[in-house]
Order: sequence, then C-alpha cells, then structure tokens
Amino acid sequence: MGLSAAHKIIKKHLLKGKMIAGQEIAIKIDRTLTQDSTGTMAYLQFEALGIDRVKTKRSVAYIDHNILQSGPENADDHLYIQTVAKKHGIYFSRPGNGICHQVNLERFSVPGDTLLGSDSHTPTGGGIGMLAIGAGGLDVAVAMGGGEYYINMPKIVKVNLTGKLGPWVTAKDIILEMLRRLTVKGGVGKIFEYTGEGVNTLSVPERATITNMGAELGATTSLFPSDDVVCEFLKAQGREGDFSYIKPDADAVYDEEMEINLSELEPMVACPHSPDKVVPVSELKDVKVNQVCIGSCTNSSYVDMMKVAHILEGKTVNENVSLTISPGSKQVLNMISENGGLASMVGAGARILESACGPCIGMGQSPATDAVSLRTFNRNFEGRSGTKSAMIYLVSPEIAAASALKGYIADPREIGDSIEIKMPDKFLIKDNMIVAPSETGNDIKVVRGPNIKPFPKAKPCENTVPGVVLTKVGDNITTDHIMPSNAKLLPYRSNIPHLAEYCLTPCDEYFPKKAKENGGGFIVAGINYGQGSSREHAALAPLYLGVKAVLAKSFARIHMANLINNGIMALVFADESDYEKIDPLDKLVIENALEQIKNDTVVVKNESKDEEYKMIFNVTQRQRDMIKFGGLLNMMKQNTK
Amino acid sequence: MGLSAAHKIIKKHLLKGKMIAGQEIAIKIDRTLTQDSTGTMAYLQFEALGIDRVKTKRSVAYIDHNILQSGPENADDHLYIQTVAKKHGIYFSRPGNGICHQVNLERFSVPGDTLLGSDSHTPTGGGIGMLAIGAGGLDVAVAMGGGEYYINMPKIVKVNLTGKLGPWVTAKDIILEMLRRLTVKGGVGKIFEYTGEGVNTLSVPERATITNMGAELGATTSLFPSDDVVCEFLKAQGREGDFSYIKPDADAVYDEEMEINLSELEPMVACPHSPDKVVPVSELKDVKVNQVCIGSCTNSSYVDMMKVAHILEGKTVNENVSLTISPGSKQVLNMISENGGLASMVGAGARILESACGPCIGMGQSPATDAVSLRTFNRNFEGRSGTKSAMIYLVSPEIAAASALKGYIADPREIGDSIEIKMPDKFLIKDNMIVAPSETGNDIKVVRGPNIKPFPKAKPCENTVPGVVLTKVGDNITTDHIMPSNAKLLPYRSNIPHLAEYCLTPCDEYFPKKAKENGGGFIVAGINYGQGSSREHAALAPLYLGVKAVLAKSFARIHMANLINNGIMALVFADESDYEKIDPLDKLVIENALEQIKNDTVVVKNESKDEEYKMIFNVTQRQRDMIKFGGLLNMMKQNTK
Repeated sequence: MGLSAAHKIIKKHLLKGKMIAGQEIAIKIDRTLTQDSTGTMAYLQFEALGIDRVKTKRSVAYIDHNILQSGPENADDHLYIQTVAKKHGIYFSRPGNGICHQVNLERFSVPGDTLLGSDSHTPTGGGIGMLAIGAGGLDVAVAMGGGEYYINMPKIVKVNLTGKLGPWVTAKDIILEMLRRLTVKGGVGKIFEYTGEGVNTLSVPERATITNMGAELGATTSLFPSDDVVCEFLKAQGREGDFSYIKPDADAVYDEEMEINLSELEPMVACPHSPDKVVPVSELKDVKVNQVCIGSCTNSSYVDMMKVAHILEGKTVNENVSLTISPGSKQVLNMISENGGLASMVGAGARILESACGPCIGMGQSPATDAVSLRTFNRNFEGRSGTKSAMIYLVSPEIAAASALKGYIADPREIGDSIEIKMPDKFLIKDNMIVAPSETGNDIKVVRGPNIKPFPKAKPCENTVPGVVLTKVGDNITTDHIMPSNAKLLPYRSNIPHLAEYCLTPCDEYFPKKAKENGGGFIVAGINYGQGSSREHAALAPLYLGVKAVLAKSFARIHMANLINNGIMALVFADESDYEKIDPLDKLVIENALEQIKNDTVVVKNESKDEEYKMIFNVTQRQRDMIKFGGLLNMMKQNTK
Repeated sequence: MGLSAAHKIIKKHLLKGKMIAGQEIAIKIDRTLTQDSTGTMAYLQFEALGIDRVKTKRSVAYIDHNILQSGPENADDHLYIQTVAKKHGIYFSRPGNGICHQVNLERFSVPGDTLLGSDSHTPTGGGIGMLAIGAGGLDVAVAMGGGEYYINMPKIVKVNLTGKLGPWVTAKDIILEMLRRLTVKGGVGKIFEYTGEGVNTLSVPERATITNMGAELGATTSLFPSDDVVCEFLKAQGREGDFSYIKPDADAVYDEEMEINLSELEPMVACPHSPDKVVPVSELKDVKVNQVCIGSCTNSSYVDMMKVAHILEGKTVNENVSLTISPGSKQVLNMISENGGLASMVGAGARILESACGPCIGMGQSPATDAVSLRTFNRNFEGRSGTKSAMIYLVSPEIAAASALKGYIADPREIGDSIEIKMPDKFLIKDNMIVAPSETGNDIKVVRGPNIKPFPKAKPCENTVPGVVLTKVGDNITTDHIMPSNAKLLPYRSNIPHLAEYCLTPCDEYFPKKAKENGGGFIVAGINYGQGSSREHAALAPLYLGVKAVLAKSFARIHMANLINNGIMALVFADESDYEKIDPLDKLVIENALEQIKNDTVVVKNESKDEEYKMIFNVTQRQRDMIKFGGLLNMMKQNTK
C-alpha cells in the first residue's frame, strides 16, 4: 500500500503508536521555532524542565510580534529571550529580521523534517515539504528538551490540484476556496496534502501561503511535496544541501480526497468576521475601503511584494485609503530596497512598516470606527484589528493593491494585464541578524526584567472537584475571546497575573471577578471552543483564575491540548442538548474524579438543578495522567523522579 | 540704526505695539502648521470661530504623532483632521508623508514669512529664514482665522559663528554647545539669530537642526539668514520662486551677542536627563549601549540619512544593540530607497520605522528597564521614552551610527575618515501625499468619530459669579496634575468630556465629581500653579467642569494665559495668608464682576466665613475683554460682528 508524503514523514519520525487516524502517536521533533509573544512562556517552561541545552537539530527564537514597545515590557522580554536562547543552544532572530514563518521558510526549513512551533501558523513550513505543526509553548519546550510530541494521528486528505491559475488569481484564492468549501472547522483532525499537476505551477512561497492559512481550516497541518520547485528554491537560498525529494507514492492511499480545478477559480474575498465567509470579489460592488494592509506570514514574500510594487508603480494611493506594507523579512526588504520595488511603493504613498506581524495581530494600525479594512492576512475575527466596529476583509496582495488605488474593493482584473514576477535565481543571503548560541552556555547570564513573572502551575487532581459555572459562552469562541491579544495586552505575555484580569472579558466582562470571588470553577461553551491562535495563555489565564474544567460541545485541537497540558479538564457534552440546561452560577461537581478520569466518560453533577450530564473525555492515557498529576510539567517531573 | 533679520521680519508683520523687548506686540501670521496630537483641538476651535476658510497664505495639517493606532481613536482623529482641513482650505499631509517640520521645510517654507505651529519645534523653519514660532492650538486657530498673534517682543541675540566644523563635528554639536553654555532656561524671551562666516558652511537642513533644538533653550525661536545656500536649497526643491534674501544689516544692533568658533567644537553628547547636560563624547568611556534611535524632526534629513547609510554600509549592528531609523519624510525615504542608502541600512540590520515622530514622543521603541538609549532627538527628559529607568543620551546621527556598530558610546573619529555627502542638486519632488483643500468646502462633510467631542466654550462673564471651593491644592501644581497626559489618555486629546474625568485627580480624586455636583465653582491653589507643559487641555478640562476662577498665590505664565484665553479668571492673593482662611466647599462670590474685572484688583467674598479677599488681576486690556466676552474665541466673534 503506497504512502502519502505526510505518512512518509510521520513514519520516519514515529516513536509511539500506529498511524491509524484518531489514535495517539508520538513523533520526534527535529526543529522548533518560537515567536516572542509565546516565546517567553515557552522558555520559562523550558527552564523549568532543568535541561541545559536543546536537543533538537535546530531551534530558533524569533522576535516579530511585540515590536511596538510602549513601555519597557517588550524590550525586557526580548532581552530575556535573547539571553536564554544564547545560553541553551537556540538561534536568535533579532527584531527587524522578519516574521518567524517567512524567515524560517527562507533560512531554516528542511523538507522531510518535523517542525514544532509555538505559533498556530507554523504549518507555513508545509509549503516546502516539512511536517510543520503549531502547538502550545509547553509542547515546544518539551520538544526542545528532546521529548516526543503527542498528537492524534490525523486523517490525511488528498487535495488534488488540477489546471492552472488564471490571470490575477493567486495562491491566496486557493486557500480561500478551501475555506469557502470546508469552513473554519473543516480541517479539524486532518492534514491536507496537496498533489496533482497544479502543484507544479506553484512556487514555494505560494505553497506556503496555502499551508499557512490551512490553520484557519482548523487543520493539524498542510503539506506540499518536496519536488524540483523546492530544489530550485533551496538552491536560490544557497541551501541546496538541505534538499531531498518527499513525494507521495503513486498508489498512495488517503483517508479522504477532494479536488480543486485551479483554472476555474476567481479572485476571492473573505468577508467579516470569519476567514470562511468567502465570496468571489466580483460579487462585492461599491464597498468603499478606508484602509489596506499588506503583509503578514500569509502574504509577504518577495514575489508578493514585487507584484504590489508593480501595481503601485507611478500611481498614488487613493486619497481616502491608508495603505500599509510590511515586508515579511529582512531578506525581502533588503531585496526590494535594492531593486526599486520599495521605492515604487513609497512613491505611491504606501506607509512602510517594520518586517514583523504588525497590524495582523492588532499591533498598531487599528482602523477608524466602522472602517472597512482590506488585509492580506489570515484572520479577520471581530475586534482583532483593535477596532471592534471595523469590517475586515481578507484578500490577496493583488486585490489589496488594486483596491488601495481605487478606493473600493476592486477586482484586479479591472486594472489591466496581470503581472509576472519571476522567482529570483538567487536570493540576497545575509544572516547577520541571526545570532548563534554560545558554545557551552556557561558564560551567559539570563537577563530577567521586572515583567517576567513566575507562571502558574496546576495542582494534582482532587477526588471531588466542585465549582460554579463561572460563565456560559456560545459557539466558535476563539482564543482571542479567551485571552484577548492586543497592543495593550501583548506586552504582558510573561505576566499571567496581569493578563488574567482580561480573561474571557470580550464574552463576559465580569468573568475574572467571578472566578476570583468563587475561587475558580467551570466554563461552559458551545462548539469549536478555543479556535484560532495556539496561545497557551488561553489556558494559563484560566488556570491562574482557578478554572477546573471546560464543558463544551467541541474543542479546537490545540486549545484542548493546551488545557490538558495545564491540568484543566476538557469535557465534551455527550448530549449537546445538556448545554441548554446549564445556567451561569449553577453549582457543579465532579465526584470521584480520580476514578472517573480513567474513563472515556465523566459524569458532572449539577447540584443547583439536581441533574447529571454525561461528558466525553476521550483522551489518551498520557493526558489522563496530566490531569491526575496537574499538568504536563508536573507529570514530566513525576516521570523523572 | 541697522536691523537684524529677525527685526526685519517682525517689522514687516507688526500690527500692534513697538519692537521694544518685553513689550506686547501683535504680528500677522502668514502660515500655520498643526500636527495630529494638538491638531484636533486646534481645528475644533477653528470651527468654533465660525470662519469658512482659512485666511493665511497657507495652512497645513500634518499627521505624524499618533500613528501607532492601538484602537480606533487615532484613525478617527486623522479622519476628522483630513475632512475638516479639506473643508476649510487647509492642506493635508497624509500619514506616512513625514514629520511636520521636515516636510514643511522641504515643501512649504518661505524665507521672510511668519509661521505659527501648534508644536514646540516649529522653529525648525528658522533654518530657512522664516520667523517660525510654536504656540498653543487656540493661537493657531485664531491665526488661521486671520487673527493677530500676541507675544512679548523678544530680545534678539546675535550668535556669531566663526570657523568651520572639523571632521565628524556636526550641526547637532553646535546646538548642543549652545545648550551646554546657556542651559534649558537660557533662551526664555529671546530669539537667537545666527550670523557670521560659519553660517555659509551650513546647509539648510543643518541650520534647521540648530533652530529646531533651539526650543530646548526655551527660546521664542531661532533664525538663520536667507542667503545663497537657501536659494540653492529652494531651487533643488523646485521652489526657487519662494526665495528672497533676508539678511541682517551690516550695522544691525542686537540686544545681546555671543560667539561660537566652529573649528573648536568636538562631537558632543547630552547626558540623562536634560538636553543641557552636555559633554564632549571623548569624556564618555565604556558606556554600553542597548538601543540607538536615529530620526526625529532634529536629525532626519536626506544628508543625515545618507551619512548613516555610509557608516553602516557592509557592517552589522552590534549584537546587543537595537538600531531604529525613521527617515524624516516621504521625500527622504523615497530618495534613499532609490539610491541604495536604505538597502545599506537594512543590510546592516537597522529596523526601519515609518517616517514619523515615533520613539521621540514615546510612540514605540521604549527601551528595556535600565537600558542606555542613544538618540538623535531633541529631548531626553526622564520617562519620555516610555521607560522611566532608561538612560537617554542625545547625539548626532554620526555618533549614533558609530555607536550602534560598536555597542558603546563611540567617538565617530574612531571609525575612520569623515564622510562627505553632497546636498542633492535636485530633490525627488512628488507631493502626492499632500491633499489640497476643496475649492469651496461646501461639498465636504466633516467626519466626526465617536472620539471627537465638541469642546467646551466659555460663557460671557455674569455680573455675579457665585460658586463653592471645589478643591484646595498646594504649591507647584503642574499641568500634569491638572490634566494628566499618559499613554492611556493621549488618544483622547479631542475628547474633553473623557479627559475631564481625570482633571486634577492626582491631587483630589473626587474633583470631577464635586465639580459636576456643584455645577462648577472655584479652585484655590498655592504658588506657581500650572507649571510645566503648555497644554491647553489643563484649561479646557476645568472649563468643561464649570470652573469660573482659580485663586492662587501665583501662576505659571503660560497656564495663566491659557486660563484667561478660555474665560477662566486667574486671580492672585494680594495677601497670601488669605489662602489659609479658605476651606473646601466654602461658598464664594464675586459681586459686580463686570465692573471689577476692569481693575487690577478684584474682591472675592467668602459667604461661608463672612470674609473678603483682595485678589490681584494684573492683566492686559485684551485679557480683560477675554474674561468679559467669555474667552478668546468669543472675543474674536464679538470683534468680527
């Protein structure tokens, strides 16, 4: 039986379990990445493991999120990361060097390797044939320490790409089409493996746009083969030595299959407030635009930038539009500042922002009240931009640039013949903003500013787990709801006591207050609880507030793992209608918990209503142990006693 | 008797009074500028004047301060400024177009004209031979409406520049030498007029560096002559038509004279925490640097940037230094992105920030706790960077760039031969980010986001002015006490109702509440009430809360003027011991007020204590009229009836 490319990589890295969809497996992690908003916590956790030097092939710490620095907190965090990295054998990508996924793709990606990153868009690396998975900081810390990464074996979905993209239709439109068809829940428990003749027509950065935004499908990851296109890319990056072919067998067997005919696609737009509210751009008429933001880990490659530069050249950004452009990396910025591309952008009136995540994570450039903002990013959740009433649309760089000139959401087919930008034969290679670790680490003192606070640790499970329902929230609650992430809060990513004051407040203003008054308790939620970013803080803040369990109709994968990693039970309603029966402030109790958590179902009693709810607790033995011992760190310590 | 250049410009614009130092004069204002943090209020006040179109030769609204936009407030303010400008005949410089003073110098400066700007560094324009003065928003609003600008005739100080700057010694070092000699109080009530052979050796942007930072001397303004160097600059900017010679007469008489021999100067550094703590760079040994920031209205011209680019070319920024560069304008950024200068910066690892004020006003890039930051800016007050414990040094771009490479405060003479950058024969001229006003304004609807609130207006004085003592505060109350200004409150500069909730709360938590409950009243204060920043909001918030008069032992000059401008009586105890007799919530009354305000003393009755207090009211006739009519705006309306 032939193997898919995903199966081949997993097989090579399999440490425990069998490659049967839904069953837990443990895999070896070759490489890790962190960014600064999740990184401080990951390195605090790594330090807590007590391991001197990372055991991966290569681990890289990036600074790309918290670069506005309104107060000393961010700079303090960066200094902590820089010194802790240098001490423990981790490469450090300095602020200004670019967005982690873009730089990692350029400089550190290796086809066939596994990459675990503390950022949900880590699957960007799938564009070059890596098995690249986003995870919580704790999982990354464990992987850096040489520990295996546990995951339920995903279903492998073959996405057969036929045909060829038409003029002005882009890789972004392929992933938007995926989102249109499958929705933001359509990828849960799956790896999307792209194959077919259409793959050959896509460059590595284009493939990376698709695998990057596969995160919005809820997928475990997405994967392209490593082929001649990858070989050319690595050669142009001076890294042909890192190349190897990773292709599915001709007779590979997949769990599911689907097909997209690239020739039939149109330029697409994801409308407010979800990446899956996708329509062809031709359906949007007379939508006046106030702001256009180009960049992010989805669309900030050299070719993306050069297309934008060509569209803008000699023109002027519409009087009523503020256009910002954030090139994805120092390599990209350096190349377009040498070849005139940047000059065309500046000449047209674009505002050039640093090579970093920027407005994509609400770091500046919040639109005006009720404004329409077009962005080449991957997420358009309500309020993520920093302006609750803003309407955010997700588009390709081509639609973005055309619309910036026109002042309304424009079909780029209006503005003339499409633009061909060749992939460079040779990228500008200058890694002088990547700092190598110290030889031994003994000479390095880790610098800890006053913003670096100890992180909360779970306690072992008690046999009776009582508590009130602290809040009851609806469907599709994102980690942005659970732990808001904005310019004001991002500086406190290493300060959980401060962050906890904002936990779930977009849904329930008084949640932190109620949690404190009641000494913790339970959260009740609808479907797909915890979708979105991988941030562990969405588990750490509830942990700090004493949350014992979350009862939901269903969970997003990474967030569920994060909860259990931190000793919080993630329980799924066996009968969804039970959700309706529970009211806020009901008194619940899990009796005989130490026995119950050994099973696939846990009974939760509602003492206020005198009812019982059967909850599914379909987790691995290892996860049961984590709940028992009070989280992954406690369990690892238990195991190494 | 010969005239100085300053006297010549003032004489040409004199509307009232005589050019005798210390006496009040009124001058005609040809041009105005605003930036966005003071601009919203200035335009709200302009609207209140009820004048359709500005009466200046040219008024320009710049966006350069609040460009980080963490929330809708800044973008809302920008949209208000853009639309109100278009309606009333004001040119609008879009966000991204650069720092007001740099852009104004390049595109709108005219030798011999007067410029009033709602920013303290407006004297930058003195570098090209304009009489350029910083003022409050209301003064600028009045000037836009065609009103005269009142000022006490300054002393004119001749600064004779002899010799020629040595290698690596710069214009920045000249103004640092001025600060070293004269201190931050040395320029109060003065205009510094630069003359002598040394002037010929300085380009217009170099001169502008000097006049810009003349603000730190406390000077009214600084002035260079308009000579052949200016002519060449304007030609290169395609504006030779704006040129005229403005030179002092050979026998010009000055109030004071001083001399600087440029040949004797060394590279200088202003140490923490004051611009006048100046020492030669050679005296600073082994000062390790964590951050270097290049830019600001003081040092972000084309030549400044190109010198930095040459120093950085082919090198790498020290591992422990974060280097940011903010080019001063779109013109500068465009030119260095065309000629490879920017590529050299990026290649070396500089972080390129938007063309805006940025870190100079604490808008991002706050250093780490206890960090050393070298900046090419004009102010290094404690905490201004956003990090209270940071040590900020002010230096030339040359010292900044050299130190960024070395990792410590470096004498640029260490790094080799000095660099000659020629002024361009032709600047890149592309004004497409400057929006011209509408022809008539009738077609323009001013957009007011929810953050733009009507500002409070005083009412004409009643004949009986009763009220309770709302609070009694001590000595040396600053405008920071009266109207706190911090990252949380800065976005609300156009929202006085919101700001008023914080008025005087650092002294008296319940002041806003008491003021509202009592329908306004009186403030009683000790000596030097209202010292510190010139912010008008420290008068507007009390006005909003119904404050009728402030009774103090003494006032800071600018705040006293701001109170009267806004129709609030500023009364000084004739007998300081009366201060002790008054208690909070005493009922006071000023009877027969309309008659009393004509005199130098006003009697205030304390009905609760059955006492009377003699208060000094020693102001100009114009200020008496302002109290009578209810502030400057109402007085202007009265006068134009």
